[in-house]
Amino acid sequence: MPNFENDSRKVVKNMSKDTDKEFEKWQAQAQKELRDTPLSDHKKGTLEGIDIQPLYTEADLDGLAHLNTLPGQAPYLRGPRATMYTGRPWTIRQYAGFSTASETNRFFKSALEAGQKGLSVAFDLATHRGYDSDHPRVSGDVGKAGVAIDSVEDMKQLFDGIPLDRMSVSMTMNGAVLPVLAAFIVAGEEQGVSQAQLSGTIQNDILKEFMVRNTYIYPPEPSMRIVADIIAHTAEHMPKFNSISISGYHMQEAGANLVQELAYTLSDGLAYVQAAKDAGLDVDSFAPRLSFFFCIGMNLFMEASKLRAARYLWARWMEKLFQPSDPRSLMLRTHCQTSGASLAEQDPYNNVIRTTIEALAATLGGTQSLHTNSFDEAIALPTPFSARIARNTQLILQHEAGITDTVDPLAGSYYVETLTAEMIEKADQLMTEIHEMGGMINAVQDGLPKREIEKMATIRQAKIDSADTVIVGVNKYQPEEDAAVDILEIDNQAVRTEQIDKLGAIRSKRDDARVTDRLAALETGAGSTGQNLLALSIDAMRERATVGEVSDALERAFGRYKATPELVTGVYESHFGEADQLASIRESLNAFRAESDGEAPVLYLAKLGQDGHDRGAKVIASAFSDFGVDVRVGDLFETPTEAAGTALELGAHIIGVSSLAAGHKTLLPELITELKAQGAEDIMVICGGIIPQQDYQFLYDAGVAAIFGPGTAIPEAACQTIDKATENLRRMHNYRQARLESSG
Amino acid sequence: MPNFENDSRKVVKNMSKDTDKEFEKWQAQAQKELRDTPLSDHKKGTLEGIDIQPLYTEADLDGLAHLNTLPGQAPYLRGPRATMYTGRPWTIRQYAGFSTASETNRFFKSALEAGQKGLSVAFDLATHRGYDSDHPRVSGDVGKAGVAIDSVEDMKQLFDGIPLDRMSVSMTMNGAVLPVLAAFIVAGEEQGVSQAQLSGTIQNDILKEFMVRNTYIYPPEPSMRIVADIIAHTAEHMPKFNSISISGYHMQEAGANLVQELAYTLSDGLAYVQAAKDAGLDVDSFAPRLSFFFCIGMNLFMEASKLRAARYLWARWMEKLFQPSDPRSLMLRTHCQTSGASLAEQDPYNNVIRTTIEALAATLGGTQSLHTNSFDEAIALPTPFSARIARNTQLILQHEAGITDTVDPLAGSYYVETLTAEMIEKADQLMTEIHEMGGMINAVQDGLPKREIEKMATIRQAKIDSADTVIVGVNKYQPEEDAAVDILEIDNQAVRTEQIDKLGAIRSKRDDARVTDRLAALETGAGSTGQNLLALSIDAMRERATVGEVSDALERAFGRYKATPELVTGVYESHFGEADQLASIRESLNAFRAESDGEAPVLYLAKLGQDGHDRGAKVIASAFSDFGVDVRVGDLFETPTEAAGTALELGAHIIGVSSLAAGHKTLLPELITELKAQGAEDIMVICGGIIPQQDYQFLYDAGVAAIFGPGTAIPEAACQTIDKATENLRRMHNYRQARLESSG
Repeated sequence: MPNFENDSRKVVKNMSKDTDKEFEKWQAQAQKELRDTPLSDHKKGTLEGIDIQPLYTEADLDGLAHLNTLPGQAPYLRGPRATMYTGRPWTIRQYAGFSTASETNRFFKSALEAGQKGLSVAFDLATHRGYDSDHPRVSGDVGKAGVAIDSVEDMKQLFDGIPLDRMSVSMTMNGAVLPVLAAFIVAGEEQGVSQAQLSGTIQNDILKEFMVRNTYIYPPEPSMRIVADIIAHTAEHMPKFNSISISGYHMQEAGANLVQELAYTLSDGLAYVQAAKDAGLDVDSFAPRLSFFFCIGMNLFMEASKLRAARYLWARWMEKLFQPSDPRSLMLRTHCQTSGASLAEQDPYNNVIRTTIEALAATLGGTQSLHTNSFDEAIALPTPFSARIARNTQLILQHEAGITDTVDPLAGSYYVETLTAEMIEKADQLMTEIHEMGGMINAVQDGLPKREIEKMATIRQAKIDSADTVIVGVNKYQPEEDAAVDILEIDNQAVRTEQIDKLGAIRSKRDDARVTDRLAALETGAGSTGQNLLALSIDAMRERATVGEVSDALERAFGRYKATPELVTGVYESHFGEADQLASIRESLNAFRAESDGEAPVLYLAKLGQDGHDRGAKVIASAFSDFGVDVRVGDLFETPTEAAGTALELGAHIIGVSSLAAGHKTLLPELITELKAQGAEDIMVICGGIIPQQDYQFLYDAGVAAIFGPGTAIPEAACQTIDKATENLRRMHNYRQARLESSG
Repeated sequence: MPNFENDSRKVVKNMSKDTDKEFEKWQAQAQKELRDTPLSDHKKGTLEGIDIQPLYTEADLDGLAHLNTLPGQAPYLRGPRATMYTGRPWTIRQYAGFSTASETNRFFKSALEAGQKGLSVAFDLATHRGYDSDHPRVSGDVGKAGVAIDSVEDMKQLFDGIPLDRMSVSMTMNGAVLPVLAAFIVAGEEQGVSQAQLSGTIQNDILKEFMVRNTYIYPPEPSMRIVADIIAHTAEHMPKFNSISISGYHMQEAGANLVQELAYTLSDGLAYVQAAKDAGLDVDSFAPRLSFFFCIGMNLFMEASKLRAARYLWARWMEKLFQPSDPRSLMLRTHCQTSGASLAEQDPYNNVIRTTIEALAATLGGTQSLHTNSFDEAIALPTPFSARIARNTQLILQHEAGITDTVDPLAGSYYVETLTAEMIEKADQLMTEIHEMGGMINAVQDGLPKREIEKMATIRQAKIDSADTVIVGVNKYQPEEDAAVDILEIDNQAVRTEQIDKLGAIRSKRDDARVTDRLAALETGAGSTGQNLLALSIDAMRERATVGEVSDALERAFGRYKATPELVTGVYESHFGEADQLASIRESLNAFRAESDGEAPVLYLAKLGQDGHDRGAKVIASAFSDFGVDVRVGDLFETPTEAAGTALELGAHIIGVSSLAAGHKTLLPELITELKAQGAEDIMVICGGIIPQQDYQFLYDAGVAAIFGPGTAIPEAACQTIDKATENLRRMHNYRQARLESSG
């Protein structure tokens, strides 16, 4: 276990130690300004457990071990390169993808013309989860939240006219990483670009999927083998390609505080290094090509400090655990994305302001590349208009704000350096805990990080619902009317039809025997050790095996992973206590019980389709459960038919569907049809998540009883839901009564 | 002359002095990354003459005298209050005003409901220049760029339902400061609020009007007496009111660099203190109520450093020159506004991003109150939609970005502290120069600051035109099509009619003899010494004298000031040298000469109406003159009739009208009609400035030959103008020829 002797644990608080006369004068005057609040209580508490003091001075820097390092040298706190942005600014790399490969290709080309420098591919959920577009489970997901890629042919179309030897490409892919990376490599090959010339990044970070994002396919152990095989293959054949992007992004989006995001991400990274080492690789052969991916939320200075702390901690832990000889093996390079969870549906232009602040935080922290969210991303996919503003945010920061003029401009700041030290200290504690559990694989199997993040998400939401935390336009300063925003609509049935046609064409032209042969080799390779699964996948994809077929072959060897949902309890109860809102929820519950012979309302919370983002559903589950609703959380990835069956089986009064990946217009009508078909039309359907205003009427017409967008206060949603359920019950009783009477 | 022994002049550059091994390693690596550029040349030059180094370290802090001060204590570098925003955030104070008093009153009320905390009144140009709305010179200006205020009745309507004992009100008024402040005081009186209860600020900063904004009425000397009288009156009767807001804002808007803005503004402040002292006041009786007003542009860290440097310099100079005994007399408190000049008409939503960065800079610098511009302010007056986004920018910074958690978060930063020291040093040098000239009144009479600012404006524009300085969406990354933006349109003829009716009603109801008596007393008071002109103005306004009448009475005693325009030359010539653009301008000029018997085109640049913003016109004049056009600059404040006459007299081929205050739809058609009436219809009319796209066709239909919006590259505008003038000449020749032939 690492134990940093010169670590920055002794953060000196000037508040207690400085006895200088001037400082006493300051204290006296500060106390006068604060009137009745004692100065000692005057500090800002944070979710990270760090109290921000009202004043930092030079005295706060005493004893901080991380000070006075230089950029471009280990431990790289001030940046991985000596000249940082003064020589070359960060790479503007916007994550994009929707509909078909040719549509996305068109979008890529216009983005490159408008000043973007690298590409970053968003895949649809069917692809993420290893299903071809013609699979019945994914009818609502094809082409929605990303581009549909079924084969090498799609991948070639995606990069048509974009020379892969001169474009750095990032791909967010974890579950189906083997067939997708293989397709990319073959697409390069068929453009005449060798593997060695390909540059870019594959996310390939499966551990965080088990914690938060749920876009896994196989169980943890074989998933880790896939990661290690990719690291090994790229180390040998793809020297310019980052074999993994170790991602904290989804943790913060799922509700993690910044210390958790930092510690769990770095611990994931250490686990991957260990896995690659265990697979026989020399650490210096791959560690310089590891890359990271962080989320940047609204806490400007803490986010910048987080990136500085991340570089320091990575260098220190890598040194302690693996003693690399190449200093670049200690160097943390990262991509960042502004926070989607910080955006609001209400007053959507506020999101331009938020994204600007977050982009600034990322660059003050020294990120290597950046995605800035579009202001309408809390509602739908970006339009060309909103995507343009998002890109311009970065261009303006690069060209007009003067922030690229010098390296690490915040260095030395009493506040930022103290914050950096506190982030280092707190994250180091968490990392030590994980390390003592035997590393992140064990921690994931125990469920610790998932539990802690879900708890933090619930606390965060409760603070917003009680307006402890102010979100402008959401829980304070609300607009009088909602601004209408043009959104990008994807006709996913059309995309699916097109994909199915393409799949048919591919299957009719290829040599089936050779495909079967390659898939069998892959299955065998997966069932034994010694063969590199990426190499075998490339062989299969080259023969025009599909993403789904490669995934299936692997699934035959590995099986499919299924998570067991857990629930955080008590947070809402303790946060709201005896608030008025709880009183009205209690009233609503009594009214429901009067109608249901004393039964509490049973709410079945379903995630339909391949969307694994479950923060919203989990927080709702925790809160409603605290309020006294009988909440049952469904398994991820149910089809509408399955969800209807489960709800019926559980005797649910209400099904709540959480939708964040644009499948709502397909999946919700299907669910309602299924409920009717299974004789359960008296189960009320409600939904929440990212659903554009434009679609509300469509969903109401389809029979959805209530829709809760981002920014809904949960206590209010609970009241409305229970009241509507009571009304529904009453209507059903009356209806049955009437039928009984008319037949009697 | 102050001579700071412990001043921060010895800025230690680590680049040259640090010999540490680590640092040499950094140098070697930086040089490797830079390839062919020598590291010693790798720094960012600025308009301020400060070279930004690629790296700052602790060594840069050696010998900086300004370090280690505490907020709330002299020299107040870290802020005027001990707890700063941790106790109470800055005041959101949006500058607003348009149309009539009752319209603006409605806008104020909705802004206060939406989270704004203080009010700031924009007056129309007629009011600024002391004309009643019925004066024939101001037909195009009434109610356009601010609210029309003619009397106490208008002022009462402006604050109807807004209790003046509980609302801090800022008023941007300089020229007609006496009748306007008097009207405010009487409006308070008639609400039952005594002078002693009124809180707020009057701009009352006449010196900068002579340098840049030109909204003066009387010559410098009597203008300074007015300032001193207001300081004296407020010191005695209005303890909660800031008697002056010493403004650098308009200097930066006019093109000053940040050091000039800082030094000239503080020097103005010192001149006012001297004037008040000369009038017999004790410095501590008024200095604590002086306030400042700075512009915040896009250079994030330099702007924050500027405010920190401003507080330090003010404390030091006040101490040296006036030895006050109250420490609050050393304290600089300031309002800030984000830069209007940094906004672009092209891709207007980019301005939301810019304003966010600027607002952040202002608050990191520790401003006491802030106005954030609306994104459409480069085009027109803000709409409720754009005003909402502008306010939300501040609310989000206050509630979501964590920047109010601690005082002066940048303190200690190697970069920011070095920059602060360099700003202090350079501004101190300029201030010393001014001081040695005998202070700012002498400098203004010499014309030095005006000249220096105009030169800087020309250099700045030349850098943009040559794309040395990139403005996103303007000279790089231009949008393919212009985004249409809804704008607020003021029907100024309707406003004028309404004001004329109100003036008629007031004049018919008041006691004319008493009014005449009070105005005579004021005129006598102005012609002698010993009486306070604000007290006399209050007496007159209470009797319902109008703004125009009070101004006229003063003008009879003081006269009206007229400035003589000067021209910067040589900047464009030296900046463009042998560029292709110059070659095509030369070609255009040759074509013109061929048509005009060898004569160069004569361009008469006119400013019509009461708009004194002349940066645009001056820069155009300098550039066109450098290109070889024969440019004549007109006097400010001409009527269309006067301008037509002057152009005819000068033998101009072209009249160029620069319009920034929304008078274009009235003044340009009048000018064209006048040219025809005076038989000069062959003089071509072009215009530039802040003109919404929506008005272009209207102006073309009225006969305007070309319109150049903000962001136009001047060399391109020159080519177009000359070519159109050639064409116009040719058409006129042909027309005359044809008439000659048909008559002959």
